[in-house]
Amino acid sequence: MNINHYIQQVGQQARDASRRMAQATTAEKNQALENIANALRAHKDTILSANEKDLENGRACQLDPALLDRLALTPERFEDMVEGLLQIQALPDPVGEISQLNYRPSGIQVGHMRVPLGVIGIIYESRPNVTIDAAALCLKSGNATILRGGSEAFESNQAIAACIQQGLVEAGLPNTAVQVLETTDRDAVGALITADKYVDVIVPRGGKGLIERIARNATVAVIKHLDGVCHTYIDEEADLDKAFNVALNAKTQRYGTCNTLETLLVAQPIAADILPRLAKAYEQAGVELRGCENTLTLLPGVQAAAPEDWDAEYLAPILAIRIVADIDEAMEHIHRHSSGHSESIITENYTKSRRFLREVDSSSVMVNASTRFADGFEYGLGAEIGISTDKLHARGPVGLHGLTSQKWIVLGDGHIRQ
Amino acid sequence: MNINHYIQQVGQQARDASRRMAQATTAEKNQALENIANALRAHKDTILSANEKDLENGRACQLDPALLDRLALTPERFEDMVEGLLQIQALPDPVGEISQLNYRPSGIQVGHMRVPLGVIGIIYESRPNVTIDAAALCLKSGNATILRGGSEAFESNQAIAACIQQGLVEAGLPNTAVQVLETTDRDAVGALITADKYVDVIVPRGGKGLIERIARNATVAVIKHLDGVCHTYIDEEADLDKAFNVALNAKTQRYGTCNTLETLLVAQPIAADILPRLAKAYEQAGVELRGCENTLTLLPGVQAAAPEDWDAEYLAPILAIRIVADIDEAMEHIHRHSSGHSESIITENYTKSRRFLREVDSSSVMVNASTRFADGFEYGLGAEIGISTDKLHARGPVGLHGLTSQKWIVLGDGHIRQ
Repeated sequence: MNINHYIQQVGQQARDASRRMAQATTAEKNQALENIANALRAHKDTILSANEKDLENGRACQLDPALLDRLALTPERFEDMVEGLLQIQALPDPVGEISQLNYRPSGIQVGHMRVPLGVIGIIYESRPNVTIDAAALCLKSGNATILRGGSEAFESNQAIAACIQQGLVEAGLPNTAVQVLETTDRDAVGALITADKYVDVIVPRGGKGLIERIARNATVAVIKHLDGVCHTYIDEEADLDKAFNVALNAKTQRYGTCNTLETLLVAQPIAADILPRLAKAYEQAGVELRGCENTLTLLPGVQAAAPEDWDAEYLAPILAIRIVADIDEAMEHIHRHSSGHSESIITENYTKSRRFLREVDSSSVMVNASTRFADGFEYGLGAEIGISTDKLHARGPVGLHGLTSQKWIVLGDGHIRQ
Repeated sequence: MNINHYIQQVGQQARDASRRMAQATTAEKNQALENIANALRAHKDTILSANEKDLENGRACQLDPALLDRLALTPERFEDMVEGLLQIQALPDPVGEISQLNYRPSGIQVGHMRVPLGVIGIIYESRPNVTIDAAALCLKSGNATILRGGSEAFESNQAIAACIQQGLVEAGLPNTAVQVLETTDRDAVGALITADKYVDVIVPRGGKGLIERIARNATVAVIKHLDGVCHTYIDEEADLDKAFNVALNAKTQRYGTCNTLETLLVAQPIAADILPRLAKAYEQAGVELRGCENTLTLLPGVQAAAPEDWDAEYLAPILAIRIVADIDEAMEHIHRHSSGHSESIITENYTKSRRFLREVDSSSVMVNASTRFADGFEYGLGAEIGISTDKLHARGPVGLHGLTSQKWIVLGDGHIRQ
């Protein structure tokens, strides 16, 4: 198979399907999603044994156990996957929404109508549930999709793809509206991210290295999700109980997620009141602490932080702690070291809360809340395709709206320009 | 001067200034705009003689008369430029606007806050008024700007830049918030569009060739404005008087603009009723017509359209006319030939108006209105930096909002994730 030719063909089919998908009614799209859920449940055994084949191959290739774990579809994960699909079905249809339709002095009425982006390419790691998740989000938002999952999940993805095709066709929609690439050839990624004639946007999901590589080589626009070096600043005027709960939750509720706290900043005047208590709780939870010089004075036995700790996304039970003079020094630290993902201030002070919200330039900025809330479900998007650390187009959790654009509509009554 | 080093320095200064600009109050930004207007008026003679120098150089280089015309700052254009600046000052400040702040089941309040993009690079042709226009829009939206105007307007732009600097400094804002490049070296463009470390978005203004070249070579995101091949479809159920007025206005109100009608589509059943009358009016206005075969039967003496006419952006008193069977054939023609800028249907039929609005995929879709309305002023944006034919981020006329992004804000009361 000539890979460029294959991607062109898939791209053209997606482009053609995207036109039909943009006009699909809410009922058609919901029907397709329900059909897919039914097909998945009907072919559960086929999918699980395809997954078993992937796992066997993976074990034979001595894949990393963490990777094998993400690859595995247990019956429970299978049901979660189908449930997630039905949750997306239940979300309101964003397409066609008309907003801000106002009369202008000339007499024309001008407003916005929400429309799909067109063709979305998703490149992701070997997690078969992402195949369904991404397909469902793109389908509901009226887009055509080209999916390229990790090669380790090839058999699982092909089995899932068959169910998606079936669901689309039974709903009267083109089976090319969702295409799972039928190749593990690595060149397919390069061809896909440069297929600007057919693909409107690429959403890569995976490690920072992969995403940086794709962003560098793509000629198609990319919605990037790079790292999450998230901060919480405990202000001098914080309620110490809130500070304790939020700082503990932000680090320990889950370690491997991008919205997990990585550096805790504490105002010097209250450091002695809050840090020993917090340190004890962190240590009980098994979190390794790395502190600045002043932190070490308060918490003897804690390891000294190296300069690279302030830029680290640990994704692990490790926390960097720095004592700062005040909110200005905290925001200066965040400006220098944050990846622009999510930051929180803990304070009871009105003016400082407003300053933090306005001045911190991250995709989520919080007051008295755990950074772990930075998530499409928690924000009410229903589901997310990723969390964008870009500023253009979509920022923060990207749900159905992030997969759409808006066009202008003008209603007149024979109006002409003077 | 080492051009890469120079652009890095300018970029770093812009990046630093962008942080201050994002926090600038509405009053500070408005004061700066007023100061700039005052400085321009105070240095009017200096600016007009700098412009005279540019014009002399241009004439010596035997510049195209159309280019010389765009380059010329007459006293009247000068006053229009200052007025435009004061109109931007009067627009509401988009920065800091909080919207959709709603409570979630977890108890947190989640919403959006509008924020500047950061550093915007503008590359434009030799029109000195764009220097003020672009600087004012970027300033009001809280961004730092790097301006690179056409080399033919170098002296004019430097004289205008001095007034901008003065206005910024007198308002207590950094003079690096707006930087007009002090070089005519062509390599500066290449360096600027690849300075992704410093520049968040590039807005090129000029011919299609220039914009395509910039988009191809840029590593910074580009808000593109390519061509405007705009259509008007006169439906079988059109009110013929509205059709006559709108179709005539869309072509003849101005010829050189991107929202001017280039191809007129007419439903076959009413072609004989409307086309002869319209053709006469077009011919009186000096518009050359190029028709499809059926058009020629109705309008003997009209030139036959060649295949390339259906894709032409004439920007001139030329109009292609095609008779189509119905709305489906009209939308199919638009799908094939439109550049996605602006299209209008003339009809009294409710269902067809809704179909056209929903199914046509262009940045502006209109019913019973002239495509000439597709413009930032007419849409109520106050001013525009350009008209985007992209789908991501900004589509159609780009005003202050298009130069901003949104971040998520989360307000809690010690909330933690369960």
